[in-house]
Amino acid sequence: MTSAGIGRAERPEGPDSPAATPVIGGLTPDEFKLAFRNHPAGVAIVTADAGNGPAGLTATSVFSVSAEPPVFVFSLSTMSSATSTIAAADTIVVHLLGSTTIEIAKLFATSGVDRFADGTIWDRLPTGEPYLTGESVWIRARIIDRIAVGGSTIVVAHALESHVDANAETTPLVYYNRTWHRLGEQSMLA
Amino acid sequence: MTSAGIGRAERPEGPDSPAATPVIGGLTPDEFKLAFRNHPAGVAIVTADAGNGPAGLTATSVFSVSAEPPVFVFSLSTMSSATSTIAAADTIVVHLLGSTTIEIAKLFATSGVDRFADGTIWDRLPTGEPYLTGESVWIRARIIDRIAVGGSTIVVAHALESHVDANAETTPLVYYNRTWHRLGEQSMLA
Repeated sequence: MTSAGIGRAERPEGPDSPAATPVIGGLTPDEFKLAFRNHPAGVAIVTADAGNGPAGLTATSVFSVSAEPPVFVFSLSTMSSATSTIAAADTIVVHLLGSTTIEIAKLFATSGVDRFADGTIWDRLPTGEPYLTGESVWIRARIIDRIAVGGSTIVVAHALESHVDANAETTPLVYYNRTWHRLGEQSMLA
Repeated sequence: MTSAGIGRAERPEGPDSPAATPVIGGLTPDEFKLAFRNHPAGVAIVTADAGNGPAGLTATSVFSVSAEPPVFVFSLSTMSSATSTIAAADTIVVHLLGSTTIEIAKLFATSGVDRFADGTIWDRLPTGEPYLTGESVWIRARIIDRIAVGGSTIVVAHALESHVDANAETTPLVYYNRTWHRLGEQSMLA
């Protein structure tokens, strides 16, 4: 527990406590993927440098948890080459993508390429983190917790600094069922 | 740590460890909300009964973390009357909503109403949890961890059972900038 009131939930003790519940069985991987296949998500790119050069990945698992203190979470899969760098970093930059930068989203989701080869798309903040210069919304944050779940890691991050380009006329990018979508008036419901 | 490999991330020790980082300062609540305002999300309804009757709420913060073991997370805000019941429950049902059931999403996001007043929209599973009978995708899950962040709680859940209606021809519901959107061919990008 820290002075801003963030910390672990208190756990009840005894055999019925959640922490004592074994995580065995349940859905098979195929059943789980089928259920989540139609669950859409906003798209983000997370970048960091833990001392070995810039790394970054496209993530569809970012959500805000609390505005006060300003905290959000995302998850990292072992499937991405950038995971180890981001998991080890002290601070990161999370870009919330608009539909006009879909090519960058694809680049940071592609394996086996140097995602930072094109020096015109990124720079470094005064604080040192690599970031994408063409994105209209990004948040610099400090990692405050990492929770291992199987081969994945849930990262809890404290938002330190943000950039929001109020003049950017972009609509958000959404990922759903292995395709990219754009929100706008054409997708709006009553 | 349990037998399926889920558990807390190991924490480095010393003053630079994440757990030792004080969560003070950073973005103001308004700055944080502005940055996240344009981040879209899929829509879910979480239902549970912790022994005092059914409770449920609309959540835009559900994402899958790991397929093996099958684990997902969502967050609960203290803003919702149903939060205390869901946070206290052993098992829950998470419905991943299609755009045809937007009225149910609105009902479970409305304060001061009995969300279960209409007995035709819900029933109980053989295992006892309340669930919405008209949703084509839902997952029954056990809560395995709760992480307090300010006034919110990040819930980590292990998927036990799923229902996916393969015949349902629905497109997902997305929430973005206080409006509801529907994905489909009209929103698809190349």
